[in-house]
Amino acid sequence: MPIVSQEDAAPARTTTPSLATRGPVLIVGSGLIGASIGLALATHGVPVRLSDASPSALALARDVGAGQPSADADDGGDVRLVVVAVPPDVTADVVARELRAHPGAVVTDVASVKGIVLEELADADLAAEDLARYVGSHPMAGRERSGAAAADADLFAGRPWVIVDHGSSSPDALMAVRHLAVDVGASPVQLSAREHDEAVALVSHLPQVIASLVASRLQGAPESALALAGQGLRDVTRIAASDPQLWAAILVGNAGPVAATLAAVRDDLAALVSALDEAAVHGPLTPGSMAAASGVVARGNAGVARIPGKHGGARRTYGEVTVLVPDRPGELGRLFGEVGEIGVNIEDFQMEHAPRQRVGMAVLSVLPASVTPLEEALQERGWRVVSA
Amino acid sequence: MPIVSQEDAAPARTTTPSLATRGPVLIVGSGLIGASIGLALATHGVPVRLSDASPSALALARDVGAGQPSADADDGGDVRLVVVAVPPDVTADVVARELRAHPGAVVTDVASVKGIVLEELADADLAAEDLARYVGSHPMAGRERSGAAAADADLFAGRPWVIVDHGSSSPDALMAVRHLAVDVGASPVQLSAREHDEAVALVSHLPQVIASLVASRLQGAPESALALAGQGLRDVTRIAASDPQLWAAILVGNAGPVAATLAAVRDDLAALVSALDEAAVHGPLTPGSMAAASGVVARGNAGVARIPGKHGGARRTYGEVTVLVPDRPGELGRLFGEVGEIGVNIEDFQMEHAPRQRVGMAVLSVLPASVTPLEEALQERGWRVVSA
Repeated sequence: MPIVSQEDAAPARTTTPSLATRGPVLIVGSGLIGASIGLALATHGVPVRLSDASPSALALARDVGAGQPSADADDGGDVRLVVVAVPPDVTADVVARELRAHPGAVVTDVASVKGIVLEELADADLAAEDLARYVGSHPMAGRERSGAAAADADLFAGRPWVIVDHGSSSPDALMAVRHLAVDVGASPVQLSAREHDEAVALVSHLPQVIASLVASRLQGAPESALALAGQGLRDVTRIAASDPQLWAAILVGNAGPVAATLAAVRDDLAALVSALDEAAVHGPLTPGSMAAASGVVARGNAGVARIPGKHGGARRTYGEVTVLVPDRPGELGRLFGEVGEIGVNIEDFQMEHAPRQRVGMAVLSVLPASVTPLEEALQERGWRVVSA
Repeated sequence: MPIVSQEDAAPARTTTPSLATRGPVLIVGSGLIGASIGLALATHGVPVRLSDASPSALALARDVGAGQPSADADDGGDVRLVVVAVPPDVTADVVARELRAHPGAVVTDVASVKGIVLEELADADLAAEDLARYVGSHPMAGRERSGAAAADADLFAGRPWVIVDHGSSSPDALMAVRHLAVDVGASPVQLSAREHDEAVALVSHLPQVIASLVASRLQGAPESALALAGQGLRDVTRIAASDPQLWAAILVGNAGPVAATLAAVRDDLAALVSALDEAAVHGPLTPGSMAAASGVVARGNAGVARIPGKHGGARRTYGEVTVLVPDRPGELGRLFGEVGEIGVNIEDFQMEHAPRQRVGMAVLSVLPASVTPLEEALQERGWRVVSA
């Protein structure tokens, strides 16, 4: 029997009241993240004001629909929320300035590092009631491309959005930033600045540095070596194409946690190099060298198994169905079309192939229970399924 | 005006004479690589004999169609080619044994390291005419899964297959191994053992070790940190799921080149850790710390740009078209189907999404000239294209 609750009487409400019911939002900094937030808010009818030190960056953000330049807006005085989306090394200064400029507004920033912003704000000589209007945040989303040209209203959809209470953030300010995250489609996650900085050092800054270091070794490699590159090297180095200036500010801004994490990898690496140096001199049966090498790979097995799956279950795993697909227009489409007809949802997808290959392997990740039915149905339709 | 050439008179011939015109091939070791070679040769009508120290592994390879167990074969005596597909640490012993057992046969191996096999063969006291029948090879193909159950007749299609002349390999033996590579669909590439070992240390062994070391740092991470993981961490650590025993034998077998490459990364890492330690103590404006961090990322930019594209052009790059795809059955299929109808070939594909997301971003790599026409055509058909 259905229970009549308060919600049945009240108007339908799927989330907390959105920012659309409040005043305009000012976004300071109209790069990828700022412009994407502007686009996402604009789709919800929130009035967005933009400012940027670069007039051309500002014009581009306006042109992609991220909001109106704040100088042009006729209601610049009633801003209720300021989002500071500038590089991490200037974030604290801009936050302090905006807290002073908009005494009635909540101010948040989206910098990838949180501790250093708080440290620098502590030196800014702000009144306690002003600091209470500041809440740090960090949307865990990005792209290898930067600038408003790469902005995307769906950039934050389903991604975690870290919210950092600095200890004296007011409940109202925390709620306003939570609304911001929810309104752009993100999932709010509350962490302390230290928890945040240590987490991103591990899951974001470490992979970036390592991808860059591996890729930098390719600078002097002979073409004949590069021609042997497979998917493994490509995957490990994909994010090495990132922006050096932005990343330098992030790494230096999170220097303590990043250095600690990198130092641990440096020590693991040094131990393996020592064991392999021994093996290079005394032969492959040198005591300890096999154990050192297999230990590194085995500990990697254990670590990678802890990365959560797409749907958020910490150890959710998918089954794989591998199908051979000729490398010509429409074949991959025909495959996906037929998988849809069969009624199976593709959770993830990877295409594997190598230079000059005329056939690719499409690796479809599906729920484990769908593996066998999908393999059978595809084979009946004439696809070449690679049995696992 | 067409010129009548010799080929017009002769029967059609698209490649060099295949192994099918010769005697049976014996494959020693029926794991992923051995069984995949067997499957590929079987599709060309080459009789394949299999042997393996493990009776159950042998039975599995037979069951997947990779060939007949050599004990069951009635023509075990006339083997013309032996392919040794056993772990690298036992490869030289098995090669020496097979050279003695089949005095009329060419013998090759598929170990991922080549120098150490030659060193160990030099100690095996073989006659010069026996050693002349040996040629090393290394098909650059593999999967994260092992064993004959994962075997695939198309595993080598379009992949490089390195062929190593040890200096006194006979021309006939080299030609036989070349035929083997071509018959299974691979592209033969001739390198010296040293060139090979240094190349794979860089493009294969380095990424494996680094992926394992990054993943191993996740072992003790809090769940709240792992929940922030994005595509970057997933890409960097994908190959960390590899087999520890096999990889230990590869790393120790190629100890010299691997140690040299890893030591260079260790030194780069140590320099960055020092710079970040300084910044952690003295603040983000410490002289040298920004330059150290941005230098690492900039050198990574330069290195990653050298990885050849799928079609083998050393600097061939593709354009990207990013499309928002709802996370339900058939949507990706509908997208690929329409891309096929539009007549554009998808060169590569990546799906980006995060936990609990209801929409994914399909990143289609296409020839640069196809980007704008494809974006426009998809938008006309109602797809949400993310402008770059």
